[in-house]
Amino acid sequence: MMSKPFVLINSAITADGKLSTREKMQIEISSKEDFERVKRLREKFDAIMVGVGTVLADNPSLKGNIIRVVADSGGKTPLNSKVLNGSNRAIIALSERAPRDKRVALEEKAEVLVCGEEKVDLNLLLEKLGSLGISKLMVEGGGTLNWSFFAEELVDQLYTYIGNFVVGGKRAPTLVDGEGVREKEEAFELELSDMQRLGEGVLLKWDVK
Amino acid sequence: MMSKPFVLINSAITADGKLSTREKMQIEISSKEDFERVKRLREKFDAIMVGVGTVLADNPSLKGNIIRVVADSGGKTPLNSKVLNGSNRAIIALSERAPRDKRVALEEKAEVLVCGEEKVDLNLLLEKLGSLGISKLMVEGGGTLNWSFFAEELVDQLYTYIGNFVVGGKRAPTLVDGEGVREKEEAFELELSDMQRLGEGVLLKWDVK
Repeated sequence: MMSKPFVLINSAITADGKLSTREKMQIEISSKEDFERVKRLREKFDAIMVGVGTVLADNPSLKGNIIRVVADSGGKTPLNSKVLNGSNRAIIALSERAPRDKRVALEEKAEVLVCGEEKVDLNLLLEKLGSLGISKLMVEGGGTLNWSFFAEELVDQLYTYIGNFVVGGKRAPTLVDGEGVREKEEAFELELSDMQRLGEGVLLKWDVK
Repeated sequence: MMSKPFVLINSAITADGKLSTREKMQIEISSKEDFERVKRLREKFDAIMVGVGTVLADNPSLKGNIIRVVADSGGKTPLNSKVLNGSNRAIIALSERAPRDKRVALEEKAEVLVCGEEKVDLNLLLEKLGSLGISKLMVEGGGTLNWSFFAEELVDQLYTYIGNFVVGGKRAPTLVDGEGVREKEEAFELELSDMQRLGEGVLLKWDVK
Protein backbone atom coordinates (compact mmCIF):
# COMPACT_ATOMS: atom_id res chain seq x y z
CA MET A 1 0.00 0.00 0.00
CA MET A 2 1.24 3.48 -0.86
CA SER A 3 1.68 5.82 2.06
CA LYS A 4 -0.55 8.83 2.64
CA PRO A 5 0.59 12.17 1.24
CA PHE A 6 2.33 14.83 3.29
CA VAL A 7 -0.34 17.45 4.13
CA LEU A 8 0.10 21.22 4.32
CA ILE A 9 -2.84 23.43 5.21
CA ASN A 10 -2.23 26.81 3.61
CA SER A 11 -4.59 29.65 4.34
CA ALA A 12 -4.98 33.41 4.45
CA ILE A 13 -6.81 34.73 7.50
CA THR A 14 -7.65 38.13 8.95
CA ALA A 15 -5.90 39.39 12.08
CA ASP A 16 -8.92 38.01 13.98
CA GLY A 17 -8.63 34.53 12.45
CA LYS A 18 -11.45 34.67 9.89
CA LEU A 19 -11.48 33.23 6.38
CA SER A 20 -14.23 35.59 5.24
CA THR A 21 -16.99 37.82 6.56
CA ARG A 22 -20.18 36.61 8.21
CA GLU A 23 -21.84 36.61 4.78
CA LYS A 24 -19.17 34.18 3.57
CA MET A 25 -18.35 36.73 0.94
CA GLN A 26 -15.01 36.08 -0.65
CA ILE A 27 -12.59 38.70 0.59
CA GLU A 28 -9.13 39.38 -0.64
CA ILE A 29 -6.97 38.81 2.40
CA SER A 30 -3.69 38.01 0.66
CA SER A 31 -1.36 40.68 -0.60
CA LYS A 32 0.22 40.57 -4.05
CA GLU A 33 3.35 39.14 -2.41
CA ASP A 34 1.32 36.36 -0.82
CA PHE A 35 -0.41 35.44 -4.09
CA GLU A 36 3.04 35.05 -5.64
CA ARG A 37 4.16 32.91 -2.71
CA VAL A 38 1.13 30.61 -3.00
CA LYS A 39 1.63 30.31 -6.74
CA ARG A 40 5.25 29.20 -6.26
CA LEU A 41 4.27 26.93 -3.36
CA ARG A 42 1.67 25.09 -5.46
CA GLU A 43 4.41 24.11 -7.90
CA LYS A 44 5.99 22.01 -5.16
CA PHE A 45 2.81 20.03 -4.53
CA ASP A 46 1.14 17.23 -6.47
CA ALA A 47 -2.42 18.15 -5.63
CA ILE A 48 -4.52 20.83 -4.01
CA MET A 49 -7.70 20.09 -2.07
CA VAL A 50 -10.66 22.23 -1.03
CA GLY A 51 -13.97 21.40 0.59
CA VAL A 52 -17.25 21.70 -1.30
CA GLY A 53 -18.20 24.68 0.88
CA THR A 54 -15.32 26.61 -0.65
CA VAL A 55 -16.37 25.57 -4.16
CA LEU A 56 -19.93 26.75 -3.48
CA ALA A 57 -18.88 30.02 -1.83
CA ASP A 58 -15.90 31.06 -3.94
CA ASN A 59 -15.88 28.89 -7.08
CA PRO A 60 -12.07 28.87 -7.18
CA SER A 61 -10.25 27.77 -10.33
CA LEU A 62 -7.25 26.43 -8.32
CA LYS A 63 -4.85 27.32 -11.07
CA GLY A 64 -1.40 25.84 -11.38
CA ASN A 65 0.07 22.69 -12.81
CA ILE A 66 -1.53 20.59 -10.12
CA ILE A 67 -4.29 18.03 -9.59
CA ARG A 68 -7.42 19.54 -8.07
CA VAL A 69 -9.31 17.55 -5.40
CA VAL A 70 -12.70 18.42 -3.91
CA ALA A 71 -13.95 16.78 -0.71
CA ASP A 72 -17.70 16.64 -1.29
CA SER A 73 -19.55 14.16 0.94
CA GLY A 74 -23.00 14.94 -0.48
CA GLY A 75 -22.13 15.42 -4.15
CA LYS A 76 -23.00 19.13 -4.19
CA THR A 77 -20.23 20.37 -6.51
CA PRO A 78 -21.97 22.21 -9.38
CA LEU A 79 -21.23 20.68 -12.77
CA ASN A 80 -20.34 24.11 -14.13
CA SER A 81 -17.89 24.96 -11.33
CA LYS A 82 -14.45 26.17 -12.43
CA VAL A 83 -12.67 23.37 -10.60
CA LEU A 84 -14.39 20.83 -12.88
CA ASN A 85 -13.86 22.82 -16.06
CA GLY A 86 -10.17 23.72 -16.04
CA SER A 87 -7.39 22.16 -18.05
CA ASN A 88 -5.98 20.03 -15.23
CA ARG A 89 -7.04 16.73 -13.77
CA ALA A 90 -9.82 16.97 -11.19
CA ILE A 91 -10.77 14.43 -8.54
CA ILE A 92 -14.05 14.55 -6.60
CA ALA A 93 -14.23 12.61 -3.36
CA LEU A 94 -17.81 11.62 -2.49
CA SER A 95 -19.34 9.59 0.31
CA GLU A 96 -21.85 6.82 -0.38
CA ARG A 97 -24.75 9.14 0.45
CA ALA A 98 -24.11 11.32 -2.62
CA PRO A 99 -27.05 10.85 -5.06
CA ARG A 100 -26.32 8.24 -7.72
CA ASP A 101 -27.38 10.44 -10.66
CA LYS A 102 -25.12 13.27 -9.52
CA ARG A 103 -22.26 10.83 -9.14
CA VAL A 104 -22.76 9.64 -12.72
CA ALA A 105 -22.86 13.23 -13.96
CA LEU A 106 -19.69 14.09 -12.02
CA GLU A 107 -17.92 11.09 -13.56
CA GLU A 108 -18.26 12.81 -16.94
CA LYS A 109 -16.24 15.74 -15.62
CA ALA A 110 -13.75 14.26 -13.16
CA GLU A 111 -12.38 11.17 -11.51
CA VAL A 112 -14.73 10.19 -8.72
CA LEU A 113 -13.49 8.45 -5.58
CA VAL A 114 -16.08 7.17 -3.12
CA CYS A 115 -14.69 7.00 0.41
CA GLY A 116 -16.89 6.61 3.48
CA GLU A 117 -20.60 6.20 4.13
CA GLU A 118 -22.00 9.51 5.33
CA LYS A 119 -18.88 11.65 5.22
CA VAL A 120 -15.73 11.52 3.14
CA ASP A 121 -13.32 9.32 5.09
CA LEU A 122 -10.13 11.38 4.88
CA ASN A 123 -7.85 8.53 5.94
CA LEU A 124 -9.20 6.36 3.14
CA LEU A 125 -9.12 9.24 0.68
CA LEU A 126 -5.48 10.02 1.46
CA GLU A 127 -4.58 6.36 0.99
CA LYS A 128 -6.27 6.41 -2.40
CA LEU A 129 -4.53 9.66 -3.36
CA GLY A 130 -1.23 8.13 -2.25
CA SER A 131 -1.84 5.13 -4.48
CA LEU A 132 -2.44 7.55 -7.37
CA GLY A 133 1.09 8.84 -6.83
CA ILE A 134 0.18 12.00 -4.90
CA SER A 135 2.83 12.41 -2.22
CA LYS A 136 2.39 16.09 -1.36
CA LEU A 137 -1.06 17.55 -0.79
CA MET A 138 -1.90 21.19 -0.15
CA VAL A 139 -5.23 21.85 1.57
CA GLU A 140 -6.78 25.28 1.11
CA GLY A 141 -9.83 25.03 3.38
CA GLY A 142 -12.44 25.98 4.24
CA GLY A 143 -12.71 25.77 8.00
CA THR A 144 -14.82 22.62 8.03
CA LEU A 145 -12.36 20.64 5.90
CA ASN A 146 -9.43 22.05 7.88
CA TRP A 147 -11.06 20.82 11.09
CA SER A 148 -11.58 17.33 9.67
CA PHE A 149 -7.90 17.16 8.75
CA PHE A 150 -6.88 18.20 12.27
CA ALA A 151 -9.41 15.92 13.95
CA GLU A 152 -8.04 12.95 11.99
CA GLU A 153 -4.48 14.00 12.85
CA LEU A 154 -3.51 14.17 9.19
CA VAL A 155 -1.89 17.62 9.12
CA ASP A 156 1.91 17.95 8.90
CA GLN A 157 2.26 21.71 8.45
CA LEU A 158 0.10 24.80 8.77
CA TYR A 159 0.95 28.03 6.95
CA THR A 160 -1.14 31.07 7.81
CA TYR A 161 -0.86 34.39 6.08
CA ILE A 162 -2.34 36.95 8.46
CA GLY A 163 -3.78 39.93 6.61
CA ASN A 164 -3.85 43.47 7.99
CA PHE A 165 -7.48 43.81 8.92
CA VAL A 166 -10.23 42.76 11.28
CA VAL A 167 -13.68 41.66 10.15
CA GLY A 168 -15.21 40.29 13.38
CA GLY A 169 -18.35 38.17 13.54
CA LYS A 170 -19.45 35.34 15.80
CA ARG A 171 -20.70 33.51 12.71
CA ALA A 172 -17.88 34.37 10.29
CA PRO A 173 -15.96 31.29 9.05
CA THR A 174 -12.64 30.78 10.84
CA LEU A 175 -9.45 28.97 9.89
CA VAL A 176 -10.53 25.85 11.78
CA ASP A 177 -14.26 25.45 12.37
CA GLY A 178 -16.14 22.16 12.80
CA GLU A 179 -16.77 20.80 16.25
CA GLY A 180 -13.54 21.92 17.88
CA VAL A 181 -11.82 20.48 20.90
CA ARG A 182 -13.42 20.61 24.33
CA GLU A 183 -10.38 21.40 26.43
CA LYS A 184 -6.74 22.40 26.15
CA GLU A 185 -5.48 18.82 26.59
CA GLU A 186 -7.14 17.90 23.28
CA ALA A 187 -5.67 20.88 21.38
CA PHE A 188 -3.31 20.28 18.47
CA GLU A 189 0.16 21.47 19.35
CA LEU A 190 2.30 23.35 16.85
CA GLU A 191 5.89 24.42 16.59
CA LEU A 192 6.80 27.66 14.88
CA SER A 193 9.33 27.07 12.11
CA ASP A 194 9.36 30.48 10.46
CA MET A 195 7.78 33.93 10.55
CA GLN A 196 8.12 36.75 8.08
CA ARG A 197 6.53 40.02 7.15
CA LEU A 198 4.99 39.74 3.68
CA GLY A 199 3.31 42.74 2.09
CA GLU A 200 1.14 44.35 4.76
CA GLY A 201 0.73 41.09 6.66
CA VAL A 202 2.64 38.27 8.31
CA LEU A 203 3.33 34.71 7.23
CA LEU A 204 3.59 32.13 10.01
CA LYS A 205 4.82 28.61 9.32
CA TRP A 206 3.94 25.98 11.88
CA ASP A 207 4.83 22.30 12.09
CA VAL A 208 2.21 20.12 13.70
CA LYS A 209 3.74 18.13 16.56
CA MET B 1 -14.62 67.86 28.52
CA MET B 2 -11.77 65.41 29.00
CA SER B 3 -10.76 63.44 25.94
CA LYS B 4 -11.36 59.71 25.61
CA PRO B 5 -8.55 57.38 26.64
CA PHE B 6 -6.13 55.78 24.20
CA VAL B 7 -7.36 52.17 23.73
CA LEU B 8 -5.22 49.06 23.29
CA ILE B 9 -6.88 45.67 22.83
CA ASN B 10 -4.46 43.05 24.14
CA SER B 11 -5.29 39.42 23.73
CA ALA B 12 -3.87 35.91 23.51
CA ILE B 13 -5.35 33.75 20.76
CA THR B 14 -4.72 30.31 19.33
CA ALA B 15 -3.14 29.88 15.88
CA ASP B 16 -6.72 29.59 14.59
CA GLY B 17 -7.87 32.84 16.20
CA LYS B 18 -9.79 31.50 19.19
CA LEU B 19 -9.92 32.92 22.71
CA SER B 20 -10.97 29.58 24.21
CA THR B 21 -12.52 26.25 23.28
CA ARG B 22 -16.15 25.74 22.24
CA GLU B 23 -17.00 25.10 25.91
CA LYS B 24 -15.63 28.54 26.74
CA MET B 25 -13.26 26.81 29.10
CA GLN B 26 -10.41 29.03 30.14
CA ILE B 27 -7.28 27.83 28.38
CA GLU B 28 -3.75 28.94 28.97
CA ILE B 29 -2.68 30.32 25.63
CA SER B 30 0.05 32.64 26.83
CA SER B 31 3.53 31.45 27.56
CA LYS B 32 5.43 32.45 30.70
CA GLU B 33 7.19 35.12 28.62
CA ASP B 34 3.86 36.54 27.50
CA PHE B 35 2.47 36.67 31.05
CA GLU B 36 5.53 38.72 32.01
CA ARG B 37 5.01 40.99 29.02
CA VAL B 38 1.35 41.60 29.94
CA LYS B 39 2.28 42.26 33.55
CA ARG B 40 4.79 44.94 32.49
CA LEU B 41 2.38 46.34 29.91
CA ARG B 42 -0.37 46.83 32.49
CA GLU B 43 1.94 49.09 34.47
CA LYS B 44 1.84 51.56 31.60
CA PHE B 45 -1.95 51.79 31.60
CA ASP B 46 -4.37 53.53 33.91
CA ALA B 47 -7.16 51.00 33.64
CA ILE B 48 -7.98 47.57 32.29
CA MET B 49 -11.41 46.63 30.95
CA VAL B 50 -13.12 43.31 30.34
CA GLY B 51 -16.66 42.39 29.35
CA VAL B 52 -19.03 40.66 31.75
CA GLY B 53 -18.81 37.48 29.64
CA THR B 54 -15.14 37.22 30.57
CA VAL B 55 -15.95 37.80 34.26
CA LEU B 56 -18.58 35.04 34.16
CA ALA B 57 -16.39 32.58 32.21
CA ASP B 58 -12.97 33.17 33.75
CA ASN B 59 -13.46 35.23 36.92
CA PRO B 60 -10.16 37.06 36.37
CA SER B 61 -8.58 39.03 39.21
CA LEU B 62 -6.94 41.53 36.78
CA LYS B 63 -4.00 42.03 39.04
CA GLY B 64 -1.67 44.97 38.82
CA ASN B 65 -1.64 48.52 40.11
CA ILE B 66 -4.47 49.47 37.82
CA ILE B 67 -8.15 50.40 37.87
CA ARG B 68 -10.41 47.52 36.82
CA VAL B 69 -13.43 48.26 34.62
CA VAL B 70 -16.21 45.82 33.70
CA ALA B 71 -18.61 46.52 30.82
CA ASP B 72 -21.82 44.89 32.03
CA SER B 73 -24.98 46.10 30.28
CA GLY B 74 -27.35 43.83 32.24
CA GLY B 75 -25.72 43.99 35.68
CA LYS B 76 -24.71 40.33 35.71
CA THR B 77 -21.35 40.65 37.46
CA PRO B 78 -21.48 38.34 40.51
CA LEU B 79 -21.00 40.18 43.79
CA ASN B 80 -18.36 37.64 44.83
CA SER B 81 -16.32 37.93 41.62
CA LYS B 82 -12.60 38.55 42.06
CA VAL B 83 -12.69 41.78 40.08
CA LEU B 84 -15.00 43.29 42.73
CA ASN B 85 -13.06 41.93 45.66
CA GLY B 86 -9.45 42.89 44.98
CA SER B 87 -7.46 45.68 46.54
CA ASN B 88 -7.73 48.08 43.61
CA ARG B 89 -10.43 50.40 42.49
CA ALA B 90 -13.15 48.77 40.42
CA ILE B 91 -15.64 50.43 38.08
CA ILE B 92 -18.74 48.71 36.74
CA ALA B 93 -20.37 50.18 33.65
CA LEU B 94 -24.08 49.32 33.46
CA SER B 95 -26.84 50.24 31.04
CA GLU B 96 -30.19 51.53 32.26
CA ARG B 97 -31.75 48.08 31.85
CA ALA B 98 -29.64 46.61 34.68
CA PRO B 99 -31.98 45.75 37.61
CA ARG B 100 -32.12 48.49 40.22
CA ASP B 101 -31.51 46.20 43.21
CA LYS B 102 -28.42 44.72 41.56
CA ARG B 103 -27.16 48.22 40.83
CA VAL B 104 -27.53 49.18 44.47
CA ALA B 105 -25.73 46.00 45.55
CA LEU B 106 -22.90 46.66 43.07
CA GLU B 107 -22.52 50.22 44.41
CA GLU B 108 -21.44 48.68 47.71
CA LYS B 109 -18.52 47.01 45.97
CA ALA B 110 -17.50 49.37 43.15
CA GLU B 111 -18.06 52.67 41.44
CA VAL B 112 -21.03 52.32 39.13
CA LEU B 113 -21.33 54.30 35.90
CA VAL B 114 -24.59 54.09 33.98
CA CYS B 115 -24.07 54.75 30.25
CA GLY B 116 -26.66 53.87 27.63
CA GLU B 117 -30.18 52.49 27.65
CA GLU B 118 -30.02 48.84 26.56
CA LYS B 119 -26.30 48.43 26.04
CA VAL B 120 -23.30 50.14 27.56
CA ASP B 121 -22.57 53.12 25.32
CA LEU B 122 -18.80 52.84 24.92
CA ASN B 123 -18.39 56.37 23.60
CA LEU B 124 -20.09 57.77 26.67
CA LEU B 125 -18.24 55.37 28.97
CA LEU B 126 -14.86 56.39 27.54
CA GLU B 127 -15.74 60.05 28.01
CA LYS B 128 -16.59 59.35 31.63
CA LEU B 129 -13.39 57.35 32.13
CA GLY B 130 -11.45 60.22 30.56
CA SER B 131 -13.02 62.67 32.98
CA LEU B 132 -11.91 60.38 35.84
CA GLY B 133 -8.33 60.90 34.65
CA ILE B 134 -7.94 57.60 32.77
CA SER B 135 -5.92 58.39 29.66
CA LYS B 136 -4.70 54.90 28.71
CA LEU B 137 -7.09 51.96 28.68
CA MET B 138 -6.21 48.34 28.02
CA VAL B 139 -9.06 46.09 26.88
CA GLU B 140 -8.69 42.36 27.44
CA GLY B 141 -11.85 41.04 25.74
CA GLY B 142 -13.72 38.91 25.28
CA GLY B 143 -14.75 38.82 21.64
CA THR B 144 -18.07 40.59 22.12
CA LEU B 145 -16.53 43.59 23.88
CA ASN B 146 -13.66 43.66 21.36
CA TRP B 147 -16.22 43.82 18.53
CA SER B 148 -18.06 46.70 20.19
CA PHE B 149 -14.81 48.64 20.47
CA PHE B 150 -14.02 48.06 16.79
CA ALA B 151 -17.59 48.80 15.66
CA GLU B 152 -17.47 52.12 17.49
CA GLU B 153 -14.03 52.85 15.99
CA LEU B 154 -12.52 53.32 19.42
CA VAL B 155 -9.45 51.07 19.06
CA ASP B 156 -5.98 52.59 18.63
CA GLN B 157 -3.82 49.48 18.84
CA LEU B 158 -4.28 45.71 18.77
CA TYR B 159 -1.71 43.35 20.27
CA THR B 160 -2.22 39.65 19.65
CA TYR B 161 -0.12 36.93 21.17
CA ILE B 162 -0.60 33.87 18.96
CA GLY B 163 -0.11 30.64 20.90
CA ASN B 164 1.26 27.45 19.39
CA PHE B 165 -1.88 25.39 19.08
CA VAL B 166 -5.15 24.92 17.26
CA VAL B 167 -8.47 24.31 19.02
CA GLY B 168 -10.99 24.62 16.15
CA GLY B 169 -14.73 25.02 16.62
CA LYS B 170 -17.40 26.89 14.72
CA ARG B 171 -18.81 28.04 18.03
CA ALA B 172 -15.57 28.71 19.90
CA PRO B 173 -15.16 32.38 20.92
CA THR B 174 -12.83 34.34 18.63
CA LEU B 175 -10.76 37.47 19.10
CA VAL B 176 -13.49 39.63 17.56
CA ASP B 177 -17.01 38.20 17.63
CA GLY B 178 -20.26 40.18 17.67
CA GLU B 179 -22.04 40.95 14.45
CA GLY B 180 -18.98 41.40 12.24
CA VAL B 181 -18.69 43.37 9.02
CA ARG B 182 -20.60 42.34 5.92
CA GLU B 183 -17.95 42.99 3.31
CA LYS B 184 -14.31 43.84 2.92
CA GLU B 185 -14.98 47.57 2.43
CA GLU B 186 -16.26 47.72 6.01
CA ALA B 187 -13.27 45.88 7.48
CA PHE B 188 -11.02 47.64 9.97
CA GLU B 189 -7.61 48.21 8.46
CA LEU B 190 -4.46 47.66 10.49
CA GLU B 191 -0.79 48.44 10.10
CA LEU B 192 1.82 46.08 11.49
CA SER B 193 4.18 47.94 13.82
CA ASP B 194 6.10 45.00 15.27
CA MET B 195 6.36 41.23 15.30
CA GLN B 196 8.40 39.01 17.58
CA ARG B 197 8.75 35.42 18.62
CA LEU B 198 7.88 35.10 22.30
CA GLY B 199 8.11 31.72 24.02
CA GLU B 200 6.54 29.17 21.71
CA GLY B 201 4.32 31.76 20.03
CA VAL B 202 4.35 35.08 18.21
CA LEU B 203 3.46 38.58 19.31
CA LEU B 204 1.98 40.85 16.63
CA LYS B 205 1.51 44.56 17.26
CA TRP B 206 -0.94 46.35 15.00
CA ASP B 207 -1.93 50.01 14.80
CA VAL B 208 -5.51 50.63 13.75
CA LYS B 209 -5.62 52.96 10.75
